[in-house]
Amino acid sequence: MLGLMQDTELTVDRILTHAATWHADREIVTREASGEITRSSFGAVHALAKRVSAALLRDGVQQGDRIATMGWNSARHLAAWYGVTNIGAVLHTLNPRLFLEQIAYIANHAGDRLLFADPMCAATVAQLLPHAPGIEKVVFLCDAATLPKTDYSAIAFDDWIADTGDDAAWGGFDERSACGLCYTSGTTGNPKGVLYSHRSNWLHANMTLQADALALSARDNVLMVVPMYHANSWGIVYSAPMVGAKLVLPGPKMDGGSIYRLIEDEGVTYSAAVPTVWQGLLQYIKSIGGKFSTLQRVTIGGSAVPESLVRTFRDDFGVDVVQGWGMTETSPLATMSSPSAEVAAMDADAQVAYKVKQGRLICGLEFKLIDDAGQRLPFDGRTPGRLMIKGPTIASAYYGGEGGDILDEEGYFDTGDVSTIDARGYMQITDRAKDIVKSGGEWISSIEIENIAVAHPAVAIAAVIGIAHPKWDERPILLCQLTPGETAEGKEVLAYLDGKIAKWWMPDDVLFVDEIPLGATGKIDKKLIRTRLEGYSLPFVS
Amino acid sequence: MLGLMQDTELTVDRILTHAATWHADREIVTREASGEITRSSFGAVHALAKRVSAALLRDGVQQGDRIATMGWNSARHLAAWYGVTNIGAVLHTLNPRLFLEQIAYIANHAGDRLLFADPMCAATVAQLLPHAPGIEKVVFLCDAATLPKTDYSAIAFDDWIADTGDDAAWGGFDERSACGLCYTSGTTGNPKGVLYSHRSNWLHANMTLQADALALSARDNVLMVVPMYHANSWGIVYSAPMVGAKLVLPGPKMDGGSIYRLIEDEGVTYSAAVPTVWQGLLQYIKSIGGKFSTLQRVTIGGSAVPESLVRTFRDDFGVDVVQGWGMTETSPLATMSSPSAEVAAMDADAQVAYKVKQGRLICGLEFKLIDDAGQRLPFDGRTPGRLMIKGPTIASAYYGGEGGDILDEEGYFDTGDVSTIDARGYMQITDRAKDIVKSGGEWISSIEIENIAVAHPAVAIAAVIGIAHPKWDERPILLCQLTPGETAEGKEVLAYLDGKIAKWWMPDDVLFVDEIPLGATGKIDKKLIRTRLEGYSLPFVS
Repeated sequence: MLGLMQDTELTVDRILTHAATWHADREIVTREASGEITRSSFGAVHALAKRVSAALLRDGVQQGDRIATMGWNSARHLAAWYGVTNIGAVLHTLNPRLFLEQIAYIANHAGDRLLFADPMCAATVAQLLPHAPGIEKVVFLCDAATLPKTDYSAIAFDDWIADTGDDAAWGGFDERSACGLCYTSGTTGNPKGVLYSHRSNWLHANMTLQADALALSARDNVLMVVPMYHANSWGIVYSAPMVGAKLVLPGPKMDGGSIYRLIEDEGVTYSAAVPTVWQGLLQYIKSIGGKFSTLQRVTIGGSAVPESLVRTFRDDFGVDVVQGWGMTETSPLATMSSPSAEVAAMDADAQVAYKVKQGRLICGLEFKLIDDAGQRLPFDGRTPGRLMIKGPTIASAYYGGEGGDILDEEGYFDTGDVSTIDARGYMQITDRAKDIVKSGGEWISSIEIENIAVAHPAVAIAAVIGIAHPKWDERPILLCQLTPGETAEGKEVLAYLDGKIAKWWMPDDVLFVDEIPLGATGKIDKKLIRTRLEGYSLPFVS
Repeated sequence: MLGLMQDTELTVDRILTHAATWHADREIVTREASGEITRSSFGAVHALAKRVSAALLRDGVQQGDRIATMGWNSARHLAAWYGVTNIGAVLHTLNPRLFLEQIAYIANHAGDRLLFADPMCAATVAQLLPHAPGIEKVVFLCDAATLPKTDYSAIAFDDWIADTGDDAAWGGFDERSACGLCYTSGTTGNPKGVLYSHRSNWLHANMTLQADALALSARDNVLMVVPMYHANSWGIVYSAPMVGAKLVLPGPKMDGGSIYRLIEDEGVTYSAAVPTVWQGLLQYIKSIGGKFSTLQRVTIGGSAVPESLVRTFRDDFGVDVVQGWGMTETSPLATMSSPSAEVAAMDADAQVAYKVKQGRLICGLEFKLIDDAGQRLPFDGRTPGRLMIKGPTIASAYYGGEGGDILDEEGYFDTGDVSTIDARGYMQITDRAKDIVKSGGEWISSIEIENIAVAHPAVAIAAVIGIAHPKWDERPILLCQLTPGETAEGKEVLAYLDGKIAKWWMPDDVLFVDEIPLGATGKIDKKLIRTRLEGYSLPFVS
């Protein structure tokens, strides 16, 4: 027997319409690439998005067509976004910071027909177009006056929508329809596309609005630092309009001074970004002896949050930090490090130990930890296992079937992370599964050793790699890039590690290198290190 | 093109499993009918619910079968609840405070097969059973020691589940499957059943967890005063376990002293109830010169919230009041009176005017106001219209097809209320549509006149009724029940109204009556008043 409730399709057009109906005048503030501050609103962006939809339909765009954007967070980008998704076309966000070959691969793989681009990206687009013949049109997210001069045909956004109407029909399709496409820059193989549905975006936004997640309200002024091309700005492109929060969009400039000015000028109460942005901001605010007038809380994600960041925000500036964890394949937010009742009752110092964990799972999602044989491991806070996740906001396959069947027989997606989960529900990532060092049947966390090694004053960057070993399968070695002007010897670094990690975790060798290679997203490129280490053999066999 | 996200069915069994996995030890505290405090937990209730499912399956219960409960809020009631819904049977909550004839009608209409009842309800059940032959079994929510002695066959809950296993399979069905059945005690015609789906309950819980709605967190200790038979305790049976909030269940005793003791003893931070419960509580706490040690905020709903209640809670006790509005057909919460950014910037006094409105719509739902011809009316805060609502948590039909097609051609459900909606999105109910007085093509709010009239010291209860009029269609008359020991004349009461309402709203007559009849839910029974007024004619025709 079915229930007798309305069959409303959860399509994201309803979100912008809700915001425009009940929060029409709520501001959307953009710092344009030029530095100029422009002011829009949910009402105005809704009207623009209607015109975008009309222009797309005029240009022959159909449901399911992929339309790309390459740009920073701005009101025009937001209008383009909803204009695409609300007629059932698929919004494909390109990360302008990727290498050209990756962008070209992704645009071709997605089959993008039209490209919205920031004027700043004009040169990248010039290089891209010869390699992406499917792109029929380029629309720059600007007015005629700021349209960049290009050798290729392009039109300014404001001109492109100038003579369209504002009555395009939105929605009216299955909530499981494709809504957005976002590629993960996998460290192995080609980038893979995650194809979000309207339903998954809606559910994710609702799940992350909980008090223990983003907790956004109509009274929040939200500085959306996390780029729209990073998994829908962690869903904030949907969750902020759902509640009528003011949006502040920083454009391309992410330095401490620029972010600080926006926070103060716009009365920002909440923001979300990766740790490096916050480190730059705190460095800046300290350099000027500043303080926050309105900022109350920040979500930090994208990589592990250092304890010092949590403490500085809280103790020096009275700002609450909640860590969020997820990945493109998880929409992205899956866990948040907000305190449980038990943790909230601890003293401030003890609470920090939980703030730096990746956090507790949002209801609707399920975790399991498994060993190499696929057997479940306990949630005891000690036993690391491969982290597997399932739920309505988790990918079931990659676009075009890349990577084949990505779920296990119980329907879980393999995050590629190795984690522990404690009895209070706090998940903590200990390593990437491919970086873990498997020694004598036990797992050694490369990240944990690296984190301790970089605390040595002479070590700027540290990388731990597993090297094949005839007896133990693998043994860890430590690569160090020294801080400029500093020197150190291997035994000195090992002595520094001694007592801080288990004896059997001690690296079998320490190599000093001029440069530890970093990938496009700033993470250590262990794949390249492994290539460079070809032919290396362990100094001794114990 | 469909998205590539997991097709997870949103069934409510996942909610209790989530709570039991991540908040196993979080307490569920019940004050039993005896006054004894018993302590359970999400882990323990999950285990009990598994046994309930096993016992139901053993007794031949199948998906879609209706299983009734008649009881107060308790851990056993909660276990019975999830035990029923999680195997796809339909949980039908009976309100033990209804008249016997209504209960019998409802139980027969629903086709209930099994009845879980509070021991306190043993006498009611005795009267009910001869009129409800479909009920095959009665299970009292107690242990063998407290099983009431009855002339009919019945078993104690603890005995009924004693020899079952705890491995019944949950979920695995369509999220649109029926989950719960709740009858509305309509003031016209027979009670009508709202058949919630798993999906609608899930979405409602998620929507109401927003910061601007219930804002529950894992750190909250929730006193669930609103009965489970009132539209799933306003969804709190689902939203509290979703976030791992502690649940405090008050059983049948709702007096101020009993509620106050629970709040203080259990560290309650949040509670939800109708205005009369809060008035009793505040009266009690003032009488003892008490204060709240932990209570931070309350949701008030079920009927309009008096301004004095908002002020007393805030100014005398530092407790924030948020009004919630909805009805059984809307799951129930649809609007919440949390401050918008603009309202939050007003002074404390001005904010109260918004706290007493019914509030702002939660994203996912849509409102329209219409006139008698079905034409849309503006959201200008002045123009009253029939309030129509649609969305995924709104009923599409009543159980058994009662009342026929209940949606208009645009899919909106008629709330039966007359409201205004202002430009800030605040909805305010001005009257029930059937009680509005239609005079000369304009609408006169009976409630507004009543609210002013009862402020006269001699008037205890006031009721305004529309009387047929040859020229104006209808004219209002005012019925007053005097405060004991007080006297008043009609012209005195009219003089009191003068200047406070529009001239043409002034009642054409004032009748003093010994008793203004109230219905089972404490609201003025205008249907009965109209019957009693048969033969009455207006004193003059102007």
